[in-house]
This record gives sequence, C-alpha cells and structure tokens, in this order.
Amino acid sequence: MESIDKVKGIYEKKLAEMEKNPVSDAVIRRLPRYHRYLGELLRQGKLRISSAELSKIMDVTASQIRQDFNCFGGFGQQGYGYNIKYLYGKIGELLGVAEGYRAVIVGAGKLGRALAATRMFSRRGVTSVALFDVDESIIGTEFNGLKVYHVSELGDFCRKNHVHIGVLTVPKESAYECARVLADAGVLGIWNFANMELMVDNSDVVVQDVHLGDSLMTLCYGIKKKNEK
Amino acid sequence: MESIDKVKGIYEKKLAEMEKNPVSDAVIRRLPRYHRYLGELLRQGKLRISSAELSKIMDVTASQIRQDFNCFGGFGQQGYGYNIKYLYGKIGELLGVAEGYRAVIVGAGKLGRALAATRMFSRRGVTSVALFDVDESIIGTEFNGLKVYHVSELGDFCRKNHVHIGVLTVPKESAYECARVLADAGVLGIWNFANMELMVDNSDVVVQDVHLGDSLMTLCYGIKKKNEK
Repeated sequence: MESIDKVKGIYEKKLAEMEKNPVSDAVIRRLPRYHRYLGELLRQGKLRISSAELSKIMDVTASQIRQDFNCFGGFGQQGYGYNIKYLYGKIGELLGVAEGYRAVIVGAGKLGRALAATRMFSRRGVTSVALFDVDESIIGTEFNGLKVYHVSELGDFCRKNHVHIGVLTVPKESAYECARVLADAGVLGIWNFANMELMVDNSDVVVQDVHLGDSLMTLCYGIKKKNEK
Repeated sequence: MESIDKVKGIYEKKLAEMEKNPVSDAVIRRLPRYHRYLGELLRQGKLRISSAELSKIMDVTASQIRQDFNCFGGFGQQGYGYNIKYLYGKIGELLGVAEGYRAVIVGAGKLGRALAATRMFSRRGVTSVALFDVDESIIGTEFNGLKVYHVSELGDFCRKNHVHIGVLTVPKESAYECARVLADAGVLGIWNFANMELMVDNSDVVVQDVHLGDSLMTLCYGIKKKNEK
C-alpha cells in the first residue's frame, strides 16, 4: 500500500534529479554574464553589491544569484553583500581568464581583422599573437600590431610559441584542415566562426562554435512569433 | 487532510510544468541547426534523409529528431524518410526566413563591414539595405553595394523603407540611443553586437544579444576544466 510519505519521497527525488542536471550547465552559462556585469560595476568604482541590487540590474532573482554563487563556494557576507573585486576575480579565475592563454587568428579577412581590432581578447586575459592567411598580398603586413603569416607556417608557429587557442575565421571548406593543423600542434581550444559544427577526431581540443547565422534566425523567429499574436 | 491523489496531482503538475518549458525552448534553439544541415544536404544534391541518417550527421538521437519535427507538425514519411527540400522550406518558414525582412547595419566599423560583406543575411532571407555611421569621412561611400548614411538619418530611413531589423555594431555607449531610434521608427527586431544586454523600455521590439566575449570565456572555461582533469 502507498503512503503519502513514500509518494512524496519518490516525487521529490524526481524533481531533484530534474533540477540537478540543468543547473550546473546553466550556472556555467551564466558565469560570463556575471563576470561582464561585475566588470562594469568595478569600472564604475563600486566596491560591494548585495544580491538584491545585482538582481535588479541583471534581471535574475536574488535567490538565483545566491544559489549560483553558492555552487562555486558562496563568497557572500551576510549584511555586507558581495565584494565585487573578489567576486570578479574569482569568477574570472573559474572561467580561466587568469590562465594567460595565447591565441592566433586563422583567416585575416574582414571578420578576422575585426576580431584582431577588438579588446575582446585582452579583456578576458587572452593575448592574440598572430594572424594567418593564404592571401600572398597581405602576408608580412600587420593589423593592429599583429603580423600576418602564411597558413603553411601555422603548425610550426603554434608549437614554437605555445599557442593555446586558435580562432577560425576561414571559409567552411578550409576549416577542418586548419583545425587539424591546430590540434596536431597542441592547441587546446578552437573558437570556430566557420559556420559549421567542427568535430576534430582523435583530439582533446575543446571546440566552441559561433553560429552568427543561427542567432540571426532566432531573431527572425522571435519577430515572426511576436507579430503573429 | 492530504490524500495520496491530491499529493500526486500537485507533483504531476510540477513535473509537467518543468518538462514543458525547457522542451519547447530547446526545440526552437535546435531549429536553426537543423536548417543549416538540411541546407548543406540540399547543396550536395540530396533529396531524402531518414532520421537515422540525420542523427549520425548531426550527433543527435534519431528519436530526438523525430520528436522535434513532430512538435512542428511531423512531416516525415514511414520508410521513405524526410523530404529534405520540403523540411528545409518548412523549418525556414517557421523561423521566419520567408518573411522577406529588411535590415540596416548601424555602425560601419570593422565588424559592421564584415557583417555587410557576408552572405549570412541573404541566405536567411534577410536583405541588408544600408549602413549607418557617425564618421563623416565614410558617409556617402559604399561597402558591398550598401551606402553609408549618417546616423542622424536612421529613424527617417527606417520609416520610409519599412526596415524590420536593426543590427547594432556601435560602441556600448551609443547602443541604447540607437536602439531607441530604431524602436521608435517601428523596427521589429534588434540584433545587438554591442556587448551589453539591451533592454528597450515600452517597446515591442525583439532583441537578440550576441555576446562574443561570453563565448570566448566559455571556451576558456572548457579548456581550463579539461586540463584540470
């Protein structure tokens, strides 16, 4: 015979399981956003913030914030709020910002050069060290202080300079080959703008695909749905 | 007093709610990826594909694929597989590709021009019609057939040309103002590259933020985690 407690127990377990898995992934996905907001507050000269204040700015519930921070050690202080600088540093550390990664940008076309010109890398503790391309007319030139090398030198360069990250802005057709060269040269991660899922066989390389086109389609879908109502 | 049925009822409702929301969101997030793969198969001249084949290429389970497609009407045929052209068209339609949206790119810097040069828009049924900037030295010039206008003309241009989408590649400091002008001019969606969460008050405009920096941090985190093991 069923007892209420037994039934409750079974369901509570189910709920807990359903909640457990998405959370850790979701927390990781939220960390860069926390890092961005905390960095902005630091630049504004703010020193401490409560979960309630952060909640308002970020449009996340205060309890969500406390829960997320708890996952990584919970560095809040009752009544005083969070030390922004400490929290910013801690999250950055968790995210690998302090690792001093070095990156090369493969593909010195418009997108590659646009990336080379941003402060996106340096702000996240990544140093871009070179550009690579096949276009002979730009080999040897410089963009934003980065020299353009021929792609045939990619593997050797990465080995010699202990490059950690390869940024791929090459056409889809060349992406696999470049990824292979990067992986063989010991690069740890690939940031892939080639608009395809990149799978590098027999390799430990971490791939992060950027699908700008998918983001555009999600926007179009949002517009369409909203205007159907 | 609690009855077992009442307790069961409450929990079943909770479970159903937890299951409902993430699923439909997840399907929507997967649609652009399906669209991309199906487009690729079409370009290779393929006409039909089974969920099993698609599963192998896309690294998603076949039952997941069938389930996803069922959510939107389930247009498969037992034993014959899916008609790729039909499915591609149908998903594109669902995503709003066939709506013929017109877009302006606000900010004709390196990123704005890189976006103007891609086929990303036309491939998804979006026509980019103009660039906007504040730099007097490029006003009136053309990039990839798109004329650069002064940002002071943005509102009028969007109203006159029935622009649906504004792409923001301006610095963070100018993003709110440009978004406000776009929303007031009746633009339906904003694709925001300004590396901040864009909230446009009192407006129905759909915003899709692109946080390239967050993506880079996720990569760094992935590298760090993998190399700690």
